[in-house]
Amino acid sequence: MLQLYFFPMACSLASRIALLEAGIEAQYHLAHIWTKQVVDDGSDFRAISPKGAVPVLVLENGDRLTESAAVLQYIADVKPEAGLAPRFGDPDRYRLQEWLSFIGAEIHKAFLYPTFWYKDDGSLAKPRARIAQTLSVPAMHLANREFLVGNSFTVADAHLTWALLLLRPAGVDIAQWPALSSYLERMQARPAVREAIATEMALRKTMAA
Amino acid sequence: MLQLYFFPMACSLASRIALLEAGIEAQYHLAHIWTKQVVDDGSDFRAISPKGAVPVLVLENGDRLTESAAVLQYIADVKPEAGLAPRFGDPDRYRLQEWLSFIGAEIHKAFLYPTFWYKDDGSLAKPRARIAQTLSVPAMHLANREFLVGNSFTVADAHLTWALLLLRPAGVDIAQWPALSSYLERMQARPAVREAIATEMALRKTMAA
Ligand SMILES: N[C@@H](CCC(=O)N[C@@H](CS)C(=O)NCC(=O)O)C(=O)O
Ligand SMILES: N[C@@H](CCC(=O)N[C@@H](CS)C(=O)NCC(=O)O)C(=O)O
Repeated sequence: MLQLYFFPMACSLASRIALLEAGIEAQYHLAHIWTKQVVDDGSDFRAISPKGAVPVLVLENGDRLTESAAVLQYIADVKPEAGLAPRFGDPDRYRLQEWLSFIGAEIHKAFLYPTFWYKDDGSLAKPRARIAQTLSVPAMHLANREFLVGNSFTVADAHLTWALLLLRPAGVDIAQWPALSSYLERMQARPAVREAIATEMALRKTMAA
Repeated sequence: MLQLYFFPMACSLASRIALLEAGIEAQYHLAHIWTKQVVDDGSDFRAISPKGAVPVLVLENGDRLTESAAVLQYIADVKPEAGLAPRFGDPDRYRLQEWLSFIGAEIHKAFLYPTFWYKDDGSLAKPRARIAQTLSVPAMHLANREFLVGNSFTVADAHLTWALLLLRPAGVDIAQWPALSSYLERMQARPAVREAIATEMALRKTMAA
């Protein structure tokens, strides 16, 4: 069985959404990304992945795969009939990769990551000044589309859904981009997305207490 | 014919290396990433891609593809016999995607990008404090390997070669990681890599003058 190391509401949420959308049963392990402890057994998360970051997907053969863009495509390809990624050979596969890169680099690493990890205003002025330009890219694209790629839900939507959810706690009100807020509403109406968020929000609350 | 919008020594260098390694003839257009002008004809680069960032690959059908991770995989797949990416279905394809994401997000967007675009110390203290941990990941991996993925040169090596080249002007001396400096030397000994760098360094010098 696939195993996912995650932290509640971190970027690994996209991988959980993908697993649920695909109907793939998996084992979930909570890895604390600040203390680097695996909560199951108190062991060192860096023994699982030296990066010390989620997501980590443990494959059937025991190999470990990191990086959302790779993990999400892997999950999609385990169950191609779920349609979570255009098949290899379909030109839209590169569109999927383009969005996964944009979300992982431009929204996550350039903005969300410094916001939650660096915190001080000195580190954040420049990323904050740039985020509106960044978000105008998916807003324009989604103005007359239901999904990022093609006509159905893909793992790129799982990734963007996570990123948009985190923008509010990061101090960005996506109501400025009606295409983004209505997209997020549509995505949150999906049973798998709802279930993933409910599970992780419940866990997150326990941890804060 | 494929067309590549590039800026000399920017991340689009990886795409030029990939095209040369694959022996794919292409048309190259210099896009000025600060002024957003296409140097050929003075037109607005944002009309080519609203992101205003290189690389942009114009496909045979006129479609435009952005994001290094997607552009590099596209180029590799145009000429599969060049072996620049494991074929779809090969588990190593996900390793390739893992490295492309890591280089694009963790080395480029988290460190090189703020270094060259934000410049002030306030923005840079945190990214600088983290870069050694980030670079230890490829250093460990390359300690006993010649290439990032499998036993031959792939587009992930093109991407990492570019990133390592930029670390020096970004103030990081990779001699601290002998595995990285000897890897970079090996990569720079490749004719296609040498040619790509020579072409772009020559152009870069003209621009500074
Ligand atoms: N490029 C990676 C980023 C992974 C990442 O930054 N994960 C965060 C949570 S969203 C984390 O675990 N951070 C721990 C750390 O950076 O020490 C991906 O796309 O998966
Ligand atoms: N995530 C993109 C990043 C592209 C990028 O940042 N390109 C830089 C040059 S290395 C650029 O053109 N920047 C112009 C800008 O950000 O305004 C990729 O991997 O291709």
